[in-house]
Amino acid sequence: MKLYDLPPSPNARRVRIFIAEKGLDIPVVPVDMMTGENQSEEYLAKNPLGKMPLLELDDGTCIAESAAICRYLEEMNPEPPLFGRDAVDKALVDMWHRRMEFELLIPMITIFVHTGEMWKDRVTQIPELAEVTTKNVQGRMEWLNQELEGKQFIAGADYTVADITAQCAFVMGKAALGIRIPEGLNNLNDWWARVSARPTARA
Amino acid sequence: MKLYDLPPSPNARRVRIFIAEKGLDIPVVPVDMMTGENQSEEYLAKNPLGKMPLLELDDGTCIAESAAICRYLEEMNPEPPLFGRDAVDKALVDMWHRRMEFELLIPMITIFVHTGEMWKDRVTQIPELAEVTTKNVQGRMEWLNQELEGKQFIAGADYTVADITAQCAFVMGKAALGIRIPEGLNNLNDWWARVSARPTARA
Repeated sequence: MKLYDLPPSPNARRVRIFIAEKGLDIPVVPVDMMTGENQSEEYLAKNPLGKMPLLELDDGTCIAESAAICRYLEEMNPEPPLFGRDAVDKALVDMWHRRMEFELLIPMITIFVHTGEMWKDRVTQIPELAEVTTKNVQGRMEWLNQELEGKQFIAGADYTVADITAQCAFVMGKAALGIRIPEGLNNLNDWWARVSARPTARA
Repeated sequence: MKLYDLPPSPNARRVRIFIAEKGLDIPVVPVDMMTGENQSEEYLAKNPLGKMPLLELDDGTCIAESAAICRYLEEMNPEPPLFGRDAVDKALVDMWHRRMEFELLIPMITIFVHTGEMWKDRVTQIPELAEVTTKNVQGRMEWLNQELEGKQFIAGADYTVADITAQCAFVMGKAALGIRIPEGLNNLNDWWARVSARPTARA
């Protein structure tokens, strides 16, 4: 089994943190997007969309999509559970995980793609989209701050894949977009301190 | 258990088709977005983001996010499996499901939101985003046509949640956006005929 990785990508990072939380040791193959390695015939044969990360199993089966990779690793290594325990718990973790994707991670990536120098020749950048999305992200941080009232982690008492995805969104916001959690949002800042202190946070 | 439904929404439709494929009978409560019913205090207490669909369990637990609702229903009613059978199969269904969301359904919804009259006062519409996304969708239809070579359904031999999501994307394209599968894309047209002929297609 090996993981095709794009080190600075928030999607790749969430898989690496997930693997670290599970205590797994999976060989990593970096893919250099800047030199177009992800558009090589060899890589496109593994993932025709040219996206990272990608998990290749020993029989050659290729699993793309970060969340699908994490879920496969959970299925094969149930402990510690990062997708919930019983049916209702799993549903709520999944709900929160998707909220963190749609309300935070995808918006952060959208801002990056539509403002970043490296994307200039790769997509049609729409500065207005980045502006509107930046404003939306501010609102979502306030919402999440309220939702965290009385909770240790995004989905409740346990650290889950929803926290991992939110963490990676905020890492991207801070490192690449100048978006930081506003000082007054105490619950969100406390949560951020809590997840950033985990030994896996820099995976 | 009851389902809060927004009849024309592609996200609500995928849950209704999923329920029909499982042969379940779940009472439906329509939510009228046009009159702002989804922004009422009562509804926001169930889903603070004001989105539909939403599954409310008998104990009051509310599960938002269509894919999380479908996965919960799968967990409680494993037959027929719509999320795959063994670990690798589940991973590949999940991968295809997410591809259908990110490459087709979300783009179709983006085009609708950024061009539709009903969204004019609800979001900042960016016509250029709709144009670029429409062009991308054309490319994705060609890609999917290739991927369907020799396959009955999106993820392989079985009809799965990935087909349901793709179906709902194309229903929206056809009904609301004037986007149709081009004639020359035979695999995609054959797949469309196959899924549209299922008794659950109009759920």
